Amino acid sequence: MSSGPIRLTRRARTALRPPSAAHVTGGFWAERRRVNAETSIPRGPAQLERAGNLANLRAAASGRGDFTGDFPFQDSDVHKWLEAASWQLAERPDDKEVAAQVEELIRLLASAQEADGYLQTYYQLARPDKRWQELGRGHELYCAGHLIQAAVAHRRATGQLRLLAVAVRFAVHVEALFGPGRAIDGVCGHPGVETALVELYRETLEERWLDLAAYFVDRRGHGLLAADADPRLGNAYWQDQVPVREARTVSGHAVRQLYLLAGVADLAAERGDPELRSAAERLWEAMVSSKTYPTGGLGARHDGEAFGDPHELPPDRAYAETCAAIASVQWSWRMALLTGEAKYSDLVERTLYNGFLAGVGLDGTRWLYVNPLQVRDEYEGAGAADGTARRTPWFRCACCPPNAMRLLAALPHYLASGDRAGLQLHQYATGVYEAGGGRVRVATEYPWEGRIAVTVEDAPADTDWTLSLRIPSWCADFTATAPDGTVTTSNGGATTPDGVTTTSHGAAKGAVRAGGGIGVTGGGGSGGGVPAAVGVGAGWLRMRRRWRSGDTVTLDLDLIPRLVHPDPRVDAARGCVALERGPLVYCLEGVDQPSGVRFDDLTLPSGSALAVRHDPDLLGGVRVISADGRRRSDGTAVPLTAVPYYGWANRKEGPMRVWIPQG
Amino acid sequence: MSSGPIRLTRRARTALRPPSAAHVTGGFWAERRRVNAETSIPRGPAQLERAGNLANLRAAASGRGDFTGDFPFQDSDVHKWLEAASWQLAERPDDKEVAAQVEELIRLLASAQEADGYLQTYYQLARPDKRWQELGRGHELYCAGHLIQAAVAHRRATGQLRLLAVAVRFAVHVEALFGPGRAIDGVCGHPGVETALVELYRETLEERWLDLAAYFVDRRGHGLLAADADPRLGNAYWQDQVPVREARTVSGHAVRQLYLLAGVADLAAERGDPELRSAAERLWEAMVSSKTYPTGGLGARHDGEAFGDPHELPPDRAYAETCAAIASVQWSWRMALLTGEAKYSDLVERTLYNGFLAGVGLDGTRWLYVNPLQVRDEYEGAGAADGTARRTPWFRCACCPPNAMRLLAALPHYLASGDRAGLQLHQYATGVYEAGGGRVRVATEYPWEGRIAVTVEDAPADTDWTLSLRIPSWCADFTATAPDGTVTTSNGGATTPDGVTTTSHGAAKGAVRAGGGIGVTGGGGSGGGVPAAVGVGAGWLRMRRRWRSGDTVTLDLDLIPRLVHPDPRVDAARGCVALERGPLVYCLEGVDQPSGVRFDDLTLPSGSALAVRHDPDLLGGVRVISADGRRRSDGTAVPLTAVPYYGWANRKEGPMRVWIPQG
Repeated sequence: MSSGPIRLTRRARTALRPPSAAHVTGGFWAERRRVNAETSIPRGPAQLERAGNLANLRAAASGRGDFTGDFPFQDSDVHKWLEAASWQLAERPDDKEVAAQVEELIRLLASAQEADGYLQTYYQLARPDKRWQELGRGHELYCAGHLIQAAVAHRRATGQLRLLAVAVRFAVHVEALFGPGRAIDGVCGHPGVETALVELYRETLEERWLDLAAYFVDRRGHGLLAADADPRLGNAYWQDQVPVREARTVSGHAVRQLYLLAGVADLAAERGDPELRSAAERLWEAMVSSKTYPTGGLGARHDGEAFGDPHELPPDRAYAETCAAIASVQWSWRMALLTGEAKYSDLVERTLYNGFLAGVGLDGTRWLYVNPLQVRDEYEGAGAADGTARRTPWFRCACCPPNAMRLLAALPHYLASGDRAGLQLHQYATGVYEAGGGRVRVATEYPWEGRIAVTVEDAPADTDWTLSLRIPSWCADFTATAPDGTVTTSNGGATTPDGVTTTSHGAAKGAVRAGGGIGVTGGGGSGGGVPAAVGVGAGWLRMRRRWRSGDTVTLDLDLIPRLVHPDPRVDAARGCVALERGPLVYCLEGVDQPSGVRFDDLTLPSGSALAVRHDPDLLGGVRVISADGRRRSDGTAVPLTAVPYYGWANRKEGPMRVWIPQG
Repeated sequence: MSSGPIRLTRRARTALRPPSAAHVTGGFWAERRRVNAETSIPRGPAQLERAGNLANLRAAASGRGDFTGDFPFQDSDVHKWLEAASWQLAERPDDKEVAAQVEELIRLLASAQEADGYLQTYYQLARPDKRWQELGRGHELYCAGHLIQAAVAHRRATGQLRLLAVAVRFAVHVEALFGPGRAIDGVCGHPGVETALVELYRETLEERWLDLAAYFVDRRGHGLLAADADPRLGNAYWQDQVPVREARTVSGHAVRQLYLLAGVADLAAERGDPELRSAAERLWEAMVSSKTYPTGGLGARHDGEAFGDPHELPPDRAYAETCAAIASVQWSWRMALLTGEAKYSDLVERTLYNGFLAGVGLDGTRWLYVNPLQVRDEYEGAGAADGTARRTPWFRCACCPPNAMRLLAALPHYLASGDRAGLQLHQYATGVYEAGGGRVRVATEYPWEGRIAVTVEDAPADTDWTLSLRIPSWCADFTATAPDGTVTTSNGGATTPDGVTTTSHGAAKGAVRAGGGIGVTGGGGSGGGVPAAVGVGAGWLRMRRRWRSGDTVTLDLDLIPRLVHPDPRVDAARGCVALERGPLVYCLEGVDQPSGVRFDDLTLPSGSALAVRHDPDLLGGVRVISADGRRRSDGTAVPLTAVPYYGWANRKEGPMRVWIPQG
């Protein structure tokens, strides 16, 4: 039984199930999570205090005081921080500082809650007469959703019921108001409650919450919010223009769309609803094929924080909100579990290492709200921190920082899965993963090095068991060595989000061709029978055998740096190339280039040689890619230095670009 | 003395002065103005009735009724229509329908005006307690500005004082409230009143209005509106982040920025203020060098309807509001008069024929608010008509249609000028122009054909007089034949807005090199002495001589079609070319391309041969450019057909692009 954000019921119809235990113990993500645990999360309450969130709770509790802040959803920052801290406590139960902070905030929330279960300080303090009257902009169900998610996390992490009791009281209040024959027939302008209610169902096994989630999913898209819609943005802004079952593409506000679809995937799983599943699969394909940045970033427009038209992916004005990357990981992971298909975890990987992680400052104290792929020399900034390409300690709309904290705190949950046949490793991080009736230990310096050693610590003794390793779609070549010394090699091709294709191959999307005479298995989960001892196909390397404790598999992924070209329909990246290595997207930052050269004069001819070197002192230690660039103005050679995109904007302010002109 | 929108005082320090009379009697603009006069303007009042603007005035007059509309500036649509209709009446005084409409609207405005002079129905009807309390968003001075401009137009066109009396009453009301030592020290969130007050000064010769304009210009940029600013957009949104004298670039909401700068140019002229003039010149250069589309369109962002960073010029998300093009023409014409430099009229020409005219449907009944340079096959539209790439009969925010009407109605005023030495033709349209002590008649089929015949009908009898013809910066070759048969030829080069350079040459921006052994004159106005009988330089061909009535000069501008390349810093157009001919920017529309070819598969290799043909049945009769395109997917040839950009979106909905991929 999973102790992470997703705990499927027994009846859930999914190909895979989340890990029953997962611990990251070293390597890349351990360091990022250490900073999260030791800096970001402990500093959260002080930021919430400074921004007025806690004062709002105290004012609501006492009935005295004004609302502080610019947004009705201010409370959700508290909820998200509580969720983050709870996952944190599951791992570090002895962290007394965080435990005390959690206790205090739960106390505050409980004291702020009304007798009828209502809890949203904006309406309690600022607009008591407007409660449930402003569904479009009010964010009441959105806040309820984050409260529920925090409460479930706290319950799973600590076994305690106090926050869950608060959340259930609010949920009961909501349930009494909403639905057929009840006072309100409506949905929230900002989705999020759907996935929360499914998880509350999973936690409590009370069907009523699943019913309520289904109600919110299916009532959406009928224009119920039309009266509140911004005429410039329309009902699509909050996905109220078409029911999700009929939608052909993702549109509108990216975070809203993605939170909704996470809930849709949850509901499809728990209800075994093929139409909902099919809608989710279709929308995910539409998103990845034409509305996703190479970084995994989502949302091409500042205006409405929205998805653009297909192939409208400007690097400079990419919105690519950190929260959208987080929501994408949440949705894609649910799709991976639902279908067993590796492509979903491909996107999770790309997003985690790039579009998501760029949002988190290396020292854990500064954040990016938007994650552009280009900043010019002559960057003129923006009106507010939320929209700038400069890291900021906190935002006026502070949705992203605590959201990033909760994803990092819960990260191990997203790395592995299990089914009746065995265990699947979706992402590679040093640690221990328990799923599918077995346990493995992973040791790797990934993403810097391509070697991943997987040791089976526990597996069914008297039957075949399948260890499945995801072969990333960017990986053209790999070698796997089984415990018996059998070597499997492969070379193939892949495509990346929005149709980016690597120069080294032209294979179909998501396909990894098998080499060395190895049979190819079908797609989907591994439950369908595996015809060979080692099989490669549809993004999975599967090893089925009798395992003994201590058996080790070594997977070597070739991390040769890649020049990637944009889909020719992505007008905003025409004539450019990007640099990638393994799961990492690279970028040029002005600070790393030779002085005396204008940044906008730099080009990277497509035949350029690429070299990789380790720089232990740069950005906490990274592999740097060097390339032979040219000045456009006079054709002279200029050495270019690219760093991982996730690390940009952590040093001197200056220009940056992922897509580099070829000439 | 000019009867157009600008009537300089005697003391104004400008190089040139507007024409004392100007009449367009045939050709391209005569047809566009006929549609404006016979369709757009007469239909205006019915649109204003439908949108509630007139109901608002009646309600304010009667004291009964609610405000109709979404914006506080609704009244300004009435004012702009009145200005348009007034210029119209100056030309067609016998148009009884329009005259009666004008009378009725003036009666309505007068009846709606409060006893104290206040007139803005939004605050009169909806927020009487908030009058002058919401300077950021209230648009009260903006509306006052348009009222004044309409009143000045009505006065100049008809000699009547009734509307001017209404406007002056409001201006007196404003003056009593604003300024040092008065009740309010503030500026309006939307500039516009500055240029209007200067013109009121010019009309009345009362210095107080010039003082008030100067106050509004110089109090701006000190953050007076900060409390009302959208934190995402900041004070730059309404140019309140830095005083205009210190500003280094244009920024924020494009229309606001441009209206402000029109007023700055007016003030610099009337006050002889070199610092203001220098600021205006600097900001114009910053705009043209890096923030202007090839169409003359301005405003790269939907978000905030704003200028982007330098070289941020996405074709798909170009905002390029029709009103910004209009404001750009107004500002640039003031700069042309102030400095005598031809480059300003180059931009006026580019804007009139492309970015402005695209906003006006060919039949005069449908409009574009935004003017993108690209629409994809998979265009998903926008929430509201204001932001879509589809023509619309009227807008929720209907600023553009009556604004376009007033520019078309006043257009002849923008075509010629005079000084002590002679007359300058800035634009070429069949008609009669009186300025600089003389009168000329122009006959031309421009922009379809490059021949322009200018006949001097009147000139000083006993002294030299200079006829100056602007040589457009796009023109690489021309021939001019003087009355005595002297032939002047030239070949040179030019650059266009945002650093677009044509393929045929590489000469410095704005320069036209003289050929045929002809001496080159200095830049600036022609008042500085002309050393040769025929001179070419800085964009002007100047002919100084004794003229006899009937003397004719023939100018032939070479209209060979051009493939133009974007500045390499304009990332969004990299790898593309555009087609231009004369002052016209061309575009591909889906409807004109061969069926069975995907629009996003079309490319135009840079070596492609271009051919021009006249199609009398297309878009009212246009020259079409044919080019040898290629399908990107398989390299096969595909004939491409380009039409003038101004005519796009008048037929079947579909994709369009100005920048065409080379491969």
